[in-house]
Amino acid sequence: MLYIVPTPIGNLADFTFRAVEVLKSVDLILAEDTRTSGVLLAHYQVQKPISPYHQHNEHKIVTHLAEQMIAGKTIALLTDAGTPGISDPAFLLVRECVKHNIKVECLPGATAFVPALVNSGLPMNSFCFEGFFH
Amino acid sequence: MLYIVPTPIGNLADFTFRAVEVLKSVDLILAEDTRTSGVLLAHYQVQKPISPYHQHNEHKIVTHLAEQMIAGKTIALLTDAGTPGISDPAFLLVRECVKHNIKVECLPGATAFVPALVNSGLPMNSFCFEGFFH
Repeated sequence: MLYIVPTPIGNLADFTFRAVEVLKSVDLILAEDTRTSGVLLAHYQVQKPISPYHQHNEHKIVTHLAEQMIAGKTIALLTDAGTPGISDPAFLLVRECVKHNIKVECLPGATAFVPALVNSGLPMNSFCFEGFFH
Repeated sequence: MLYIVPTPIGNLADFTFRAVEVLKSVDLILAEDTRTSGVLLAHYQVQKPISPYHQHNEHKIVTHLAEQMIAGKTIALLTDAGTPGISDPAFLLVRECVKHNIKVECLPGATAFVPALVNSGLPMNSFCFEGFFH
């Protein structure tokens, strides 16, 4: 099973009670940057094996990760800040899980664009997300 | 000041540490349904005055609420589940705050559509939100 776990954007308290529970329960944590996520994991006293998963290695490792999950391992995926998949790596691994009928659960949590939208004072009946400017 | 506070969608642990801190610090909590939010507030031992704010009374009360915030009160807005403003009331009050230079801060937290999108296994470089089907 794969958990997608959103992480804080600037304030470590922007993290859910369930995210801590899930991270303490998994066999392996995948992180976009293991040093960045190390600060968060230390803050919440999570001690689990951690391995890098980012845009430069994801193509090479998704098959091996899927095999581990098929064999029964539970994995959590974190990115540096916000929800994995939203302008961050995740899609390739989720697609591989869907392909192999591996259960995927994305926890609700921090995203940068939703609070920006709500704070704007503009109507929010519908909107389009086109990615971040670089 | 106005805080927009996202709330859990089905699992009470999908709530952030900062959301609890903020709710314990405000003068007044506005809730879409005071009974629904009462369950959440009791779970996290938040004891604050609570008042209804929903699509049937928001037009009548936004001016009075803005006056209270201009006078120095801090208010938090909750809806039944998810982020206020996303298919839920909030826009009218946020717009009133922007008009009067009242500080608005939307905390990051639960939304229904972001986990649904990430779980889909589809690419997420860009997407459009058109509201929920009724």
